[in-house]
Amino acid sequence: MHLTVYLAGQIHDDWRDEIKRKAEEKKLPLTFVGPQTNHDRSDNVGEDIIGKQPDAYYKDDAASSINNLRTQILMQKSDVVVALFGEKYKQWNTAMDASAAITMNKPTIIVRPTSLIHPLKELSNKANVTVETIEQALEVLAYIYE
Amino acid sequence: MHLTVYLAGQIHDDWRDEIKRKAEEKKLPLTFVGPQTNHDRSDNVGEDIIGKQPDAYYKDDAASSINNLRTQILMQKSDVVVALFGEKYKQWNTAMDASAAITMNKPTIIVRPTSLIHPLKELSNKANVTVETIEQALEVLAYIYE
Amino acid sequence: MHLTVYLAGQIHDDWRDEIKRKAEEKKLPLTFVGPQTNHDRSDNVGEDIIGKQPDAYYKDDAASSINNLRTQILMQKSDVVVALFGEKYKQWNTAMDASAAITMNKPTIIVRPTSLIHPLKELSNKANVTVETIEQALEVLAYIYE
Amino acid sequence: MHLTVYLAGQIHDDWRDEIKRKAEEKKLPLTFVGPQTNHDRSDNVGEDIIGKQPDAYYKDDAASSINNLRTQILMQKSDVVVALFGEKYKQWNTAMDASAAITMNKPTIIVRPTSLIHPLKELSNKANVTVETIEQALEVLAYIYE
Amino acid sequence: MHLTVYLAGQIHDDWRDEIKRKAEEKKLPLTFVGPQTNHDRSDNVGEDIIGKQPDAYYKDDAASSINNLRTQILMQKSDVVVALFGEKYKQWNTAMDASAAITMNKPTIIVRPTSLIHPLKELSNKANVTVETIEQALEVLAYIYE
Amino acid sequence: MHLTVYLAGQIHDDWRDEIKRKAEEKKLPLTFVGPQTNHDRSDNVGEDIIGKQPDAYYKDDAASSINNLRTQILMQKSDVVVALFGEKYKQWNTAMDASAAITMNKPTIIVRPTSLIHPLKELSNKANVTVETIEQALEVLAYIYE
Amino acid sequence: MHLTVYLAGQIHDDWRDEIKRKAEEKKLPLTFVGPQTNHDRSDNVGEDIIGKQPDAYYKDDAASSINNLRTQILMQKSDVVVALFGEKYKQWNTAMDASAAITMNKPTIIVRPTSLIHPLKELSNKANVTVETIEQALEVLAYIYE
Amino acid sequence: MHLTVYLAGQIHDDWRDEIKRKAEEKKLPLTFVGPQTNHDRSDNVGEDIIGKQPDAYYKDDAASSINNLRTQILMQKSDVVVALFGEKYKQWNTAMDASAAITMNKPTIIVRPTSLIHPLKELSNKANVTVETIEQALEVLAYIYE
Repeated sequence: MHLTVYLAGQIHDDWRDEIKRKAEEKKLPLTFVGPQTNHDRSDNVGEDIIGKQPDAYYKDDAASSINNLRTQILMQKSDVVVALFGEKYKQWNTAMDASAAITMNKPTIIVRPTSLIHPLKELSNKANVTVETIEQALEVLAYIYE
Repeated sequence: MHLTVYLAGQIHDDWRDEIKRKAEEKKLPLTFVGPQTNHDRSDNVGEDIIGKQPDAYYKDDAASSINNLRTQILMQKSDVVVALFGEKYKQWNTAMDASAAITMNKPTIIVRPTSLIHPLKELSNKANVTVETIEQALEVLAYIYE
Repeated sequence: MHLTVYLAGQIHDDWRDEIKRKAEEKKLPLTFVGPQTNHDRSDNVGEDIIGKQPDAYYKDDAASSINNLRTQILMQKSDVVVALFGEKYKQWNTAMDASAAITMNKPTIIVRPTSLIHPLKELSNKANVTVETIEQALEVLAYIYE
Repeated sequence: MHLTVYLAGQIHDDWRDEIKRKAEEKKLPLTFVGPQTNHDRSDNVGEDIIGKQPDAYYKDDAASSINNLRTQILMQKSDVVVALFGEKYKQWNTAMDASAAITMNKPTIIVRPTSLIHPLKELSNKANVTVETIEQALEVLAYIYE
Repeated sequence: MHLTVYLAGQIHDDWRDEIKRKAEEKKLPLTFVGPQTNHDRSDNVGEDIIGKQPDAYYKDDAASSINNLRTQILMQKSDVVVALFGEKYKQWNTAMDASAAITMNKPTIIVRPTSLIHPLKELSNKANVTVETIEQALEVLAYIYE
Repeated sequence: MHLTVYLAGQIHDDWRDEIKRKAEEKKLPLTFVGPQTNHDRSDNVGEDIIGKQPDAYYKDDAASSINNLRTQILMQKSDVVVALFGEKYKQWNTAMDASAAITMNKPTIIVRPTSLIHPLKELSNKANVTVETIEQALEVLAYIYE
Repeated sequence: MHLTVYLAGQIHDDWRDEIKRKAEEKKLPLTFVGPQTNHDRSDNVGEDIIGKQPDAYYKDDAASSINNLRTQILMQKSDVVVALFGEKYKQWNTAMDASAAITMNKPTIIVRPTSLIHPLKELSNKANVTVETIEQALEVLAYIYE
Repeated sequence: MHLTVYLAGQIHDDWRDEIKRKAEEKKLPLTFVGPQTNHDRSDNVGEDIIGKQPDAYYKDDAASSINNLRTQILMQKSDVVVALFGEKYKQWNTAMDASAAITMNKPTIIVRPTSLIHPLKELSNKANVTVETIEQALEVLAYIYE
């Protein structure tokens, strides 16, 4: 049974490549989708497509409208969501995506370091599973096929 | 027409009292509900009710399960959600509540300072309205009755 | 049995007062809700509450975000929707509200002059009932209580 | 990931061919569906299939019932909706389709000239993204695959 | 706990009065709603409100659109549905209402004579409870309060 | 675009073969599904699988439970429903299936002779399209592909 | 804010009276509903209302159809569910009710002795909160009002 | 038409292999999915992936969170559920899965020995079909293709 996995979370390192590579090694029939991972493109896409905006606020709103469309389409096509939290940045997009997924009854795995246990406790409690590493998240996905 | 308003967001100052007081001054037929605002009680409620947990992680999980039950009940009874973001703390609960509300088709107002425009841009774009002050949030609520 | 009726449609004359008055004459247990009927306030509410916007486009978007919040709250509380189309203006808000209501399974009555039969034919076909006058719309509502 | 796109909007020029051609040039894995674009056939399909109706009103109702069945089937199969507004005609079908799509949680892109900013402001605010040209709409769709 | 009961079924005798009287005797906190029980009014309501139609088919369609609006509103307000089948007439409205109720997760009681067991077997199997008399239907409703 | 069509209605003649044959002639990418068309098997399937029942009532209930499971599975997989009414039999199953389909937002075409206009008027009004012949129903389906 | 609480679980002792009494002592604005607690009446209600059945299987099925109608009505009216598991009996009804509640997004509290941790682990994980005593369940409910 | 079948129930013998073998013999286009059937792995998967837990309760909760994620994903992908009850064990997972499936409108077949008629009567009444043997469950599935 083929499954589609939405990878929510930060776009500052190549964790998505790592999880895809591990999935291929295990020959899991998974397709991974996720947000735009080119940070500049993600921030600028509103102006890139719609044109110059009056100031930073409107530039951000234009970009986010297109990013949200992308996320909504891909998350609706997904069977399961992995949401990664790291120690840097606000990461409210990740919290937003994980919460939207849970509310849409998309099974959801949260990945976070133990340093974030306390601030993430309510979201972690609502998710299906919380793990600490990408490797563990993939083991959870692999378990579906055992 | 009477409405119930869920007030999501930080519990470190008395912003909920302020919004309630202003609503009373305007004689708006609003009932406000929200999370536990006693911070210690919120953190300890798991152990308070269920008993001593093995360590901080399990204490947090026990507390969050009860906090989440409360939020789910009160948000399902609400007609509109106001979610306040401030400059301190991770505030992932607030992002989680706002995103859950939006996904459940609960009309949602975000309150945030302009310093948070960029990190909140996607959530702000998904919400119905974003304002900068509690006073403005109440004006939006008051507008429903004009 | 008390019912709440959302009155969608143009805000350029006092048709809502007329329908309310007729309902009172018939002593129907109906509460009527609807959009902001002060046209200037409806157009300016974004700048009134959030502040000056860069240009007309952003002023419009700010106003519409608050108008949409109001409509969403009041329509979700409603049991039935009456949508009035007249011969002037684009009236895309009315079409939007009627279509949203039908898609949400809110029973919907369209009021339109016969001159609009052709351009409204698909929306009219999706609505429960189409009539030509406000008086007829109220007769349909009154029929629920016979 | 293959996506199906519903193209709502006027049927008086060949904008759908243009968007399809551009998608092919970019090799995007998109299937486009939409309403009957033969205007006479769309107006006459009720009488064509069900037979002569008593007058224009009933002819329109018969045609619209079949057009609505087609739209409902194809929109339910779609992952994203593009709704084009032009400067001519009432275009209430387009507003109806866009609003139905948004209410069904189908991600929606509106295309409209700047002259329509004001009358479309509420619908535009509810849609995910609003752009001014078909080219921009396709860039938004292409962004999903970046 | 107060409950609203929709009474679907034929309108050729006073079975609704009987069930209401029995409910009053038992002092059950039930409100009963249902279709128009004046048969002529039900058949003519389209022409009564909208005006003369071209022929019997259009007269029927106009009446049914208003009857369906009434049923949809009242059934959505109901907590439980009682659907009575008798030995005369097609009674497709009753089957339609019962099936709509079951599909909307409205708990449903069917009342039918034993002579109808075979033709009603699939609908009866989908309903919650099937009984043979109005008295029994009321006993089922009364049981909720024991 | 491939579509699945559920063919609800009587099983006393070969109308399903006729519609399938016509669809093949037109090379429409349609798959047709429907109820058990062997009448004896449909009536006996409960006892055939579960074993002898105490009397005719229980035999009918056992059969209908299996027929309903089949219908529910196949209708949930379908994109559109055609429901045929003829002049004989109670046909409450057909009314039940059509009403369930409409309530589940499955686009629905009713086929019925003009002699049934009056008793079917409410169901016909709720369906998307009503036609008089199988040929016409297929033309409606073919129109989706024009 | 008034809440309705469905009390699922065994009917062999007076635990429901205990929880009601404690709620009254704390003056919580809660209404408690639940299944028939007269065990004989619960088992016999099918034959009591519908009449003698062929054997024990059919007697059970008749009773359960009426018990399920009652549960469905009352659970749909409830805001939160408390499900008590004890050490005796199969208690599949309790598991069924708790799982139905969770799937319907009704916030759910499970009460069970520690001896049942292992067999209830999946259901407990899906519920919002699991406690060991009725007193604790009531403390969780009381917490909503703090 | 290909269907996916979720096989809920005990994992102490090879009943799933039996049903798969019989389906292959009949050349039915069915894919079967289900829970982890290695009992030790199912109990230990939490610690296997997430690491050592403080005691048996937390070990169970960690395992069940991963088992529930697996079940939720596979059940959402399934078209029909078969739930087997045997004479041993609490089997609350099976009751939970069957009740969740029914509440999600997944057609559901229960398999249970006659000795369990009484304790399973409410769940059996809510399911579509109840049979006594795996062979019979497969005959019900095969009937969909007749």
